[in-house]
Amino acid sequence: MEVKVMKNILGENEKIAEDNRKFFRDKKIFVLNLMGSPGSGKTTLLEKTLSKLTQKIKVAVIEGDLFTARDAERIEREGVPVVQINTSGGCHLDAPMVRRAAESLNLDAIDLLIVENVGNLVCPAEFDIGENMKAVVLSITEGDDKPLKYPLIFKESAACVLNKIDLLPFTNFNLEQARADLEIIHPMIEIFETSCTKEIGIYNWCEFLIDKMKNF
Amino acid sequence: MEVKVMKNILGENEKIAEDNRKFFRDKKIFVLNLMGSPGSGKTTLLEKTLSKLTQKIKVAVIEGDLFTARDAERIEREGVPVVQINTSGGCHLDAPMVRRAAESLNLDAIDLLIVENVGNLVCPAEFDIGENMKAVVLSITEGDDKPLKYPLIFKESAACVLNKIDLLPFTNFNLEQARADLEIIHPMIEIFETSCTKEIGIYNWCEFLIDKMKNF
Repeated sequence: MEVKVMKNILGENEKIAEDNRKFFRDKKIFVLNLMGSPGSGKTTLLEKTLSKLTQKIKVAVIEGDLFTARDAERIEREGVPVVQINTSGGCHLDAPMVRRAAESLNLDAIDLLIVENVGNLVCPAEFDIGENMKAVVLSITEGDDKPLKYPLIFKESAACVLNKIDLLPFTNFNLEQARADLEIIHPMIEIFETSCTKEIGIYNWCEFLIDKMKNF
Repeated sequence: MEVKVMKNILGENEKIAEDNRKFFRDKKIFVLNLMGSPGSGKTTLLEKTLSKLTQKIKVAVIEGDLFTARDAERIEREGVPVVQINTSGGCHLDAPMVRRAAESLNLDAIDLLIVENVGNLVCPAEFDIGENMKAVVLSITEGDDKPLKYPLIFKESAACVLNKIDLLPFTNFNLEQARADLEIIHPMIEIFETSCTKEIGIYNWCEFLIDKMKNF
């Protein structure tokens, strides 16, 4: 009985997600769904990404959080249009939330919409929001066992950003092991090593994003 | 409609959680529900806690994970009875899962049951498993904004363990701000600063646990 209800909810979300995808495609907007644990550094990566990308393309951001508009305020300082979705405790964004938020933006003026999902390595991976690409941020301090322990989010993501790489010397994170595990879970995944505080790897990540947009 | 279904599921869980609590009390077992983000250091804190506590009391552990038995294998090396629950992608433990797992342990031989929940700062806070106390592990590398962004889990927890405190000099974590925010969300919360790699604060955390057990 519970499973049936869950399927119905997912089915409804998938329908709206497909419709979102068509809606964004008609407006020639590429949509990135950026996911990761609380504190993996999604918002900081986004700030660095925006400071590079906005020289070349027009970007807008949807910020997903349970409560507060802190992340949206940070993004606004980058001079980028941003809408905050507060889920009031909800553990993921879904397609209807993203559609409502997107419709409050001036969509004719943008090429790329980045949706920063709720900080959670589990639930967001299960909900299509109508994106063209998913990416997951995994910080070095979270440990190298996370890909095998939370495989779905890594399987669903075209890219994995290994963030806070500057903290590698202070942890027991085994980079080779993490890369090998990611390879098993998702052989086609693109892996980036970044540090937002030390400005490492941001360029490659941004070039990858632009390349994905060109081929969409 | 969806809300109604959710309420029914929660209602059913709460009934079983209450029954669990009675079941554990009859056996004089104190139950701790240990929560936190993926990579906050729950399992390592647990290893350190066990190495201290098992000199004084009899402990067993239930490990919650989406997949793999990696954490259970780590706990087993501490010489402690352990059961792994794999949720197969599910984002939290619930009361029936914990009951089934507990019944596979020799409960007459233990004083304290520690349940390590799925790595997730959102969903586990919503599901009573029949514990006597909740505690949340927040690692310094996750950022000081997490209490305000994920308030429920901090509101529900009797203790917050600020872990990886040795990494404080390498981050922009504002300890004073985090403490002030925790104070707002939950004035009665006990805060511990720990480092499992540098063996900081483990003693105080363990003494707190033993004290809670005495007064239960």
